[in-house]
Amino acid sequence: MFSMLRINTASCTAQMETFDAKEFLLGGRTLSSYLVSSEVPATCDALGKKNKLFFCSGVLSGTAVSSSDRLSIGGKSPLTGGIKESNAGGIVGTRMSQQGLRCITLEDAPPGDAGWKIIVIGSEKTEFVDGGFLAGKGVYEKSALLTQQFGVKAGCITIGPTAEKLLSATGIACSDPHGVCSRYAGRGGLGAVMASKKIIAMVILNDGKIKPAFVDEDAFKAGAKKIVQLLKENPVSTLFTKYGTAAMVDICQALKVLPTQNFRHGVMEGAEKINAQTMYDTIKQRDGEGRTQHACMHPCAIQCSNVYPDKDGRLLCSPVEYETMALMGSNLCLKDLDAIATLNRIANDAGVDTLDVGAAIGVAMEAGIAEFGDTTAAIALMEEVRALTPLGRILASGCKTAARVLGVRHAPHVLGQAIPAYEPRGSKGMAMTYLSTPMGADHTFGFTLRDEEVPTSKEGKVALSKKFQVIGSRMDAMGMCNFVRYSVRNNMQPLLDLIQFRYGVDITEVEFDDMVKKTLRIEHQFNTDAGITAQDYRFTETFYEEVQPETGEVMDITDEESALARKW
Amino acid sequence: MFSMLRINTASCTAQMETFDAKEFLLGGRTLSSYLVSSEVPATCDALGKKNKLFFCSGVLSGTAVSSSDRLSIGGKSPLTGGIKESNAGGIVGTRMSQQGLRCITLEDAPPGDAGWKIIVIGSEKTEFVDGGFLAGKGVYEKSALLTQQFGVKAGCITIGPTAEKLLSATGIACSDPHGVCSRYAGRGGLGAVMASKKIIAMVILNDGKIKPAFVDEDAFKAGAKKIVQLLKENPVSTLFTKYGTAAMVDICQALKVLPTQNFRHGVMEGAEKINAQTMYDTIKQRDGEGRTQHACMHPCAIQCSNVYPDKDGRLLCSPVEYETMALMGSNLCLKDLDAIATLNRIANDAGVDTLDVGAAIGVAMEAGIAEFGDTTAAIALMEEVRALTPLGRILASGCKTAARVLGVRHAPHVLGQAIPAYEPRGSKGMAMTYLSTPMGADHTFGFTLRDEEVPTSKEGKVALSKKFQVIGSRMDAMGMCNFVRYSVRNNMQPLLDLIQFRYGVDITEVEFDDMVKKTLRIEHQFNTDAGITAQDYRFTETFYEEVQPETGEVMDITDEESALARKW
Repeated sequence: MFSMLRINTASCTAQMETFDAKEFLLGGRTLSSYLVSSEVPATCDALGKKNKLFFCSGVLSGTAVSSSDRLSIGGKSPLTGGIKESNAGGIVGTRMSQQGLRCITLEDAPPGDAGWKIIVIGSEKTEFVDGGFLAGKGVYEKSALLTQQFGVKAGCITIGPTAEKLLSATGIACSDPHGVCSRYAGRGGLGAVMASKKIIAMVILNDGKIKPAFVDEDAFKAGAKKIVQLLKENPVSTLFTKYGTAAMVDICQALKVLPTQNFRHGVMEGAEKINAQTMYDTIKQRDGEGRTQHACMHPCAIQCSNVYPDKDGRLLCSPVEYETMALMGSNLCLKDLDAIATLNRIANDAGVDTLDVGAAIGVAMEAGIAEFGDTTAAIALMEEVRALTPLGRILASGCKTAARVLGVRHAPHVLGQAIPAYEPRGSKGMAMTYLSTPMGADHTFGFTLRDEEVPTSKEGKVALSKKFQVIGSRMDAMGMCNFVRYSVRNNMQPLLDLIQFRYGVDITEVEFDDMVKKTLRIEHQFNTDAGITAQDYRFTETFYEEVQPETGEVMDITDEESALARKW
Repeated sequence: MFSMLRINTASCTAQMETFDAKEFLLGGRTLSSYLVSSEVPATCDALGKKNKLFFCSGVLSGTAVSSSDRLSIGGKSPLTGGIKESNAGGIVGTRMSQQGLRCITLEDAPPGDAGWKIIVIGSEKTEFVDGGFLAGKGVYEKSALLTQQFGVKAGCITIGPTAEKLLSATGIACSDPHGVCSRYAGRGGLGAVMASKKIIAMVILNDGKIKPAFVDEDAFKAGAKKIVQLLKENPVSTLFTKYGTAAMVDICQALKVLPTQNFRHGVMEGAEKINAQTMYDTIKQRDGEGRTQHACMHPCAIQCSNVYPDKDGRLLCSPVEYETMALMGSNLCLKDLDAIATLNRIANDAGVDTLDVGAAIGVAMEAGIAEFGDTTAAIALMEEVRALTPLGRILASGCKTAARVLGVRHAPHVLGQAIPAYEPRGSKGMAMTYLSTPMGADHTFGFTLRDEEVPTSKEGKVALSKKFQVIGSRMDAMGMCNFVRYSVRNNMQPLLDLIQFRYGVDITEVEFDDMVKKTLRIEHQFNTDAGITAQDYRFTETFYEEVQPETGEVMDITDEESALARKW
């Protein structure tokens, strides 16, 4: 049996609920979206007391299966106005499972002038303690204060000063294995939702003793080994093991979809200065605290994370991922990994989504606030974000709002969420996915890029996007890392076997996919109920009118086509 | 026959078109909304080349009928994302009629980096002249430079520096009879639309010789006199003649709907310091350039405008209207007419809507950016708007965006447009109107306040709002000043007679109202096509949850009720 800890943030009370049996397969995004859809009025103010925040662990969380402990956080998004699930690595999912928790729910809200609280969840009790001492501090300092008080092995969740101000592009930071809140559920503004409930941090103590039960433990152990073997045999996950997601720089540059100069271009001259090899060599050469092949959770056989060190070998930022390298690098015409890592660090400290704020800085540069390629100016802009100046607040409100306030028409977003690191005119498959997700432009659940024969053509891309929407969503539904999908995309039986050995439930791939599709349907229905229409699933008009020079392409996907890709 | 001058802003060409006979009754908002609906794709970027801007004169424009020369400006709104008509007094409507123009259309757009142009329309030709010398200048300076070049009697239309930056709460300023561009079509961001077409000013020269033709000129003259007589007999218009719209301060204070402290209250202690009598006495006492009973156009028998002088009797701002006195006065807890007039002047110079930016400053004060009641701080904030600082741009983006960027949930707007000067929880009739207009919260077309037996009750307010939506829209449809409606609300035959004597068209009140209702239907259809849904016609959640202290009321109008008030 699994439990939900339901916490009322107005009355500062908590109560345990148990799931009924037929829902016990729910985990990750499947669970969070089910709960958002069931419990949150679609038209409510995302920053009001009717919104809820659900922290959900995965179906195989707490077991020895590689990469199975992602934490899914769900609620209504203040950024898009629609449903949101954003997930993070780190150790919080494991700690929740050790406390027997499949879900923690934050609901209601105290008055806006109420004091900040920390929720401390242990095996004995759930406590609300004063969190005023954390207010206004950066995430790194908050993180240090939390581990000092609650131990380095506690699962901590916190938000940055930008979220405290209810800004829309703010995320939720979760503990990594070193006790640093650096694993972000970054997208969609869920940090502001947590802040609206006056919860500045949540701590799951390391005193949980609950171990997962198995129907057939030996078979499960063998099945878990099989997953490791599959990951180690797969060329994509092994590429990520060595280089991390930075491997995408060269791939995207070659495909002419590397976002450059506020998504005006798909190729950056000098991209090799920020590619995977340069990063790898830099980390190895500087040594010190630098790490490649670094795990964000245990166990993980991929270990795509890294620790990027400064010139003296001291940790500058961990991790530095491709999406950030593109949005805060090539998109700003920056060709300097140290600058990118610095921007990333400040963003993490400020508590913002590196994608949406990177895109916002691109917009600001197009508005003439700073020059493209100017690392000093870019860092100064991120310092404004951290300092919460008016300009900083504009940027921390995300790309769409920044574009509105700075008078820029070419704003890379769909549904108010910044486009990730694949220029959509150059990859019509990725474009179709951006136009299809209920979450706003997103790449994790319908990643077509590696499978497009002619990326610039929209032919067949409805079907291709839908295929990968399902493949990606399977991982979200299980609460597994998205990168496992490469190993099981043609045959997910090894994962279904694990469900069988763990729960005694025999579920076929078709049945599992039906569940995934049902989740997509309820997510889209939530958006419809929230007042989001087909007209909102669009790029800005500039993408349709202006040619991306390297591919000679404009956006040519019609409303009718993208509607098909959202129909389940 | 009437003509439209259709101007392509990309090719810098103009051509004359004539209306076909059956449409010749169209004028004002009826014409502009018909054209927007027919020619602008509802989902287009309001700041892109597919949007158009229509400048329409009224059905009786150019005649001797009092208050008949309002200029209706229509297009898709960058503020609301829906259809927009905003109208202004001044002399431009007259000048258009003298050139035989019922409509001037600006369409297409040059590239964003194209130079600024001034369009000069004379009886001989239409010219595009370089407007670079106006760029970045305030509206008062632009206005002076335009009259210097084109004569004090030319009908000039220009925008402020905020509009040049494409900000969403910017208006279009039109010449008053003294050659000052101080008559604003302020609402909905049409200034930014004009800027997006790189037109910094438009001038209709005073060389037009076309006089209106009449079927029965003598009868028309007699009918025009009848209108004057009705206006002079009506208690509301005569009240406005003496005191101007400032008369509303005491009325709204008494009804507890005077927006105070960011719409948290409906009563301001000390409101008498900014009421009509104080304003009247101040103007009379300072004398000099100060004026009460001042006309924004000729002829006008109401003359509700004023010239507010500074302490030395020099013009500080003209006009200072109730809506501004509330949004930039009581709403900010300012009890100082000089401060309000100063804010108004800076807003006019910057080119912004005083309502939306007043509401945005209220939001900024709630966010703690400045203290309520601090006149110096309020003026400093308006100076930031004029100086286009980041904070100034936030404010010039209007109340909704300011609330988002500054993290304030209580944002007084509907459909993204700031609520005008009547607190909606205290007047459910006005609230119903705000929730019903296709234009975003607006008071000019469904003004119930004077006719609500129990303002705090929603009973019967669907019907009441709809009644006044029609009464108000009749004036918009004719291009007449809204204040004429008091004199003809129970019997519009005197206006219909004028149509008969002017055009020989016999139209009944029922037929006229059918035309008005058809306009409302096409406006709402445009919004639906643009992706605006029933869920968008709402106040922020705070209005439904938090009691307005003076009335003890929350917002209690349901989606179903407001939907009825939008159904025609």
